[in-house]
Amino acid sequence: MVIDLNADLGEGFGIWRLGDDLALLDIVTSANVACGFHAGDPVTIRRTCAAAVDRGVSIGAQVSYRDLAHFGRREMDVEPEELCAEVLYQLAAVDGIARAMGGRVSYVKPHGALYNRVCRDKEQATALIDAVADYDPALPVLTLPVSAVHEVAAAAGVPTVSEAFADRAYTAAGALVPRREAGAVIHDVAAVTARARGMALEGSVTAVDGSRVSVSARSLCVHGDTPDAVGLARAVRNDLLAAGVVLQAFA
Amino acid sequence: MVIDLNADLGEGFGIWRLGDDLALLDIVTSANVACGFHAGDPVTIRRTCAAAVDRGVSIGAQVSYRDLAHFGRREMDVEPEELCAEVLYQLAAVDGIARAMGGRVSYVKPHGALYNRVCRDKEQATALIDAVADYDPALPVLTLPVSAVHEVAAAAGVPTVSEAFADRAYTAAGALVPRREAGAVIHDVAAVTARARGMALEGSVTAVDGSRVSVSARSLCVHGDTPDAVGLARAVRNDLLAAGVVLQAFA
Amino acid sequence: MVIDLNADLGEGFGIWRLGDDLALLDIVTSANVACGFHAGDPVTIRRTCAAAVDRGVSIGAQVSYRDLAHFGRREMDVEPEELCAEVLYQLAAVDGIARAMGGRVSYVKPHGALYNRVCRDKEQATALIDAVADYDPALPVLTLPVSAVHEVAAAAGVPTVSEAFADRAYTAAGALVPRREAGAVIHDVAAVTARARGMALEGSVTAVDGSRVSVSARSLCVHGDTPDAVGLARAVRNDLLAAGVVLQAFA
Amino acid sequence: MVIDLNADLGEGFGIWRLGDDLALLDIVTSANVACGFHAGDPVTIRRTCAAAVDRGVSIGAQVSYRDLAHFGRREMDVEPEELCAEVLYQLAAVDGIARAMGGRVSYVKPHGALYNRVCRDKEQATALIDAVADYDPALPVLTLPVSAVHEVAAAAGVPTVSEAFADRAYTAAGALVPRREAGAVIHDVAAVTARARGMALEGSVTAVDGSRVSVSARSLCVHGDTPDAVGLARAVRNDLLAAGVVLQAFA
Repeated sequence: MVIDLNADLGEGFGIWRLGDDLALLDIVTSANVACGFHAGDPVTIRRTCAAAVDRGVSIGAQVSYRDLAHFGRREMDVEPEELCAEVLYQLAAVDGIARAMGGRVSYVKPHGALYNRVCRDKEQATALIDAVADYDPALPVLTLPVSAVHEVAAAAGVPTVSEAFADRAYTAAGALVPRREAGAVIHDVAAVTARARGMALEGSVTAVDGSRVSVSARSLCVHGDTPDAVGLARAVRNDLLAAGVVLQAFA
Repeated sequence: MVIDLNADLGEGFGIWRLGDDLALLDIVTSANVACGFHAGDPVTIRRTCAAAVDRGVSIGAQVSYRDLAHFGRREMDVEPEELCAEVLYQLAAVDGIARAMGGRVSYVKPHGALYNRVCRDKEQATALIDAVADYDPALPVLTLPVSAVHEVAAAAGVPTVSEAFADRAYTAAGALVPRREAGAVIHDVAAVTARARGMALEGSVTAVDGSRVSVSARSLCVHGDTPDAVGLARAVRNDLLAAGVVLQAFA
Repeated sequence: MVIDLNADLGEGFGIWRLGDDLALLDIVTSANVACGFHAGDPVTIRRTCAAAVDRGVSIGAQVSYRDLAHFGRREMDVEPEELCAEVLYQLAAVDGIARAMGGRVSYVKPHGALYNRVCRDKEQATALIDAVADYDPALPVLTLPVSAVHEVAAAAGVPTVSEAFADRAYTAAGALVPRREAGAVIHDVAAVTARARGMALEGSVTAVDGSRVSVSARSLCVHGDTPDAVGLARAVRNDLLAAGVVLQAFA
Repeated sequence: MVIDLNADLGEGFGIWRLGDDLALLDIVTSANVACGFHAGDPVTIRRTCAAAVDRGVSIGAQVSYRDLAHFGRREMDVEPEELCAEVLYQLAAVDGIARAMGGRVSYVKPHGALYNRVCRDKEQATALIDAVADYDPALPVLTLPVSAVHEVAAAAGVPTVSEAFADRAYTAAGALVPRREAGAVIHDVAAVTARARGMALEGSVTAVDGSRVSVSARSLCVHGDTPDAVGLARAVRNDLLAAGVVLQAFA
């Protein structure tokens, strides 16, 4: 029983910080490093990569739409050629810094609105996968399991890795309950840790209708932008270890 | 007798263009590609690199201060750690795109205010050279010959290449006459082509006091941001070829 | 017979220019000045306003989504509170500069993707109109005549002004033929000037199906981003004057 | 005995926050609102102005160099025409939003590197004062008392207000001890409140050499970017009130 814990890191910009990166780096096995388009400036990327390398945490490039003002949370109609170039630019930039710090980018995770879009939009998914294939076709892409980007990646020979969310409600069909619906996000620590354990040990979770739904995930996503979030992530980690689960990066 | 012609390319941003890139790519042997900090967005970088690869023109990363609003023309007091990270970010990003287009970054040239600063400021020169050494210590750095950055690079084992300006007046000491002084920039086509020829064939040029001054340069910088500039650059190229000079990238 | 000619101006940013502002200012009666969110920096706004005041051209604030990288051409889901604040910020900023130059902002025109969005999206139209009403409810808003923004403005007591496009094909229902369809943009000078004359003198234009469709417009929009566009705009102006139409700003 | 307490507010951008604005608004009598060039986006400005109006706190426009990436902390050589336009743009934008919220901008305070620069550089001070005079020559400018900007403002008929820093060491000549020197910033709460009291009641403070130096100030600047800073600001406020000082905005 092996699983990865991933979290978003390095999401500051200039003078501004977001979340407790060092606390998270002691919890996760994979760090999704902001690449400068929704957050992250070069010196923040450099420090985040250096700290990840120090702790043996795997580094991923968390690529995004170009939108600092809205933290990459607005979907955009970007031409495939442009989106491909933007992803390649971010991926190469962070990999260059990671290598200078003694590590390297070992996977790609889209951020925010781009994440949602490539899960259902084949054109943008193709632009993303084209960029990864151009840079290094052996780099896995981390997203939701049933998605346009997984199909496109499979066709292109780019590996994919699936993630699940222990603090999110699932439908009976295995999809996430949209955030705007009541009960979409679970805050109770015992409930979240139990769900994480179920995901890691049984590959399943209880859906909103009470049924048991299969959730195939090599990685669990945790959050760290509030003190409560860090505490929840730490509880998930400790509970998994206590249950005998091995925490290990996928890449 | 071999010399390189270099020019700044890909200096658009979003909807905006600057200069005639395709015309210049038929003239020069080295293209200084804007990396996104003073100009250049990912799709512009991609198209510029693709066009350079098509024509066998060598690609350089023209790294800059982060300053789109002022085109990298304002000197800034940037901490060495930050400047090093910014240079590394730009260099890696453009190299990643160049490689996806079938080429690669084969040299680094600082832009605008950073160019001037690293020629005299050892701290910022060190930050620049550290970034190059971190990325690939075999990449040459292109600047003025007598400069802080050449000294720092030599100590770090990073190669340097010197450039000269056929359309700029030189002092008897071999320095450029500052732009604000009368006669600093030479516009007469015959004068500029003659100076370029002298630089390429004899390694010298006539200084403002009439003396002959040694100008050791493996590359001549030409400009292309106006129709006149492109015409002047083409005249320099044709005149050098007619004089038997071989035009060849240094990298 | 009185009509206004409006065009987008001041669409440069930093070192970059777009279009021939001074040529256009001799043609139009209303200048839609970019406010800094899709184009335009403070010194460009200042120079554009000063030149407009010199020539007695009316100044409008051309407000936009915050998107320099894509020139305001990407639709965005922006919360009403945020969009309202963004419009107010732009409008107030340009009005402050216009007043310092001896003029003032006398109307508002949304730009690009925001223009299209507020013509059909009541929520964003409301945010736009709220900002105008907050700043000065007497300022007219310039858009297409049949649109969500006109309805919202009417309900709020904010005046509106309708514009038409002499170089665009119209459907029999009076809507613009989408740009992606063949024949959507008319380039023939004689055809465009004839259509402009018909719009000004008869308030109608020939639709793509050959029928005559009513086009009620107090202003005609002309473009100036290419030499051809400036020539076309000048031809429209001269033809209208020759036909006895009075060119006069609406505000 | 009347004094003003001023602090920087609204220094977030997009998703990022800095300091506890609501806590500070219960302490100060004047709020220096970031205008979007070093921090602050339109919706943050709007919320900050609304909260200041609610509490009867005076609103100032804290104008800055255009430099989000470095929080306006890098000095820049900006042409006077450009700097004047940038200040005017920021001032007008925030005033427009403040008025929509039922208040108005009633003073101007330069931020960071611009603050330091205009205290000693007459050219940039003139550009700043020109912008204020263009917008509203009755608006006071808040800075250090002995400075280029005060001289330039006096000549232009623009009022100025002087501020002092209770947590900064002063030289015997009445200048601030530079931050890089040991002891430049005073952290002891009792010492800071005593100095604030002395500044308000006696117009003087003990300099680093033990002498008593005159510090003429109508306003004291307090900080709020850390919990400790908010606590210190509150202690200064409470101590001044206990000493019978009236806290009142100058504008």
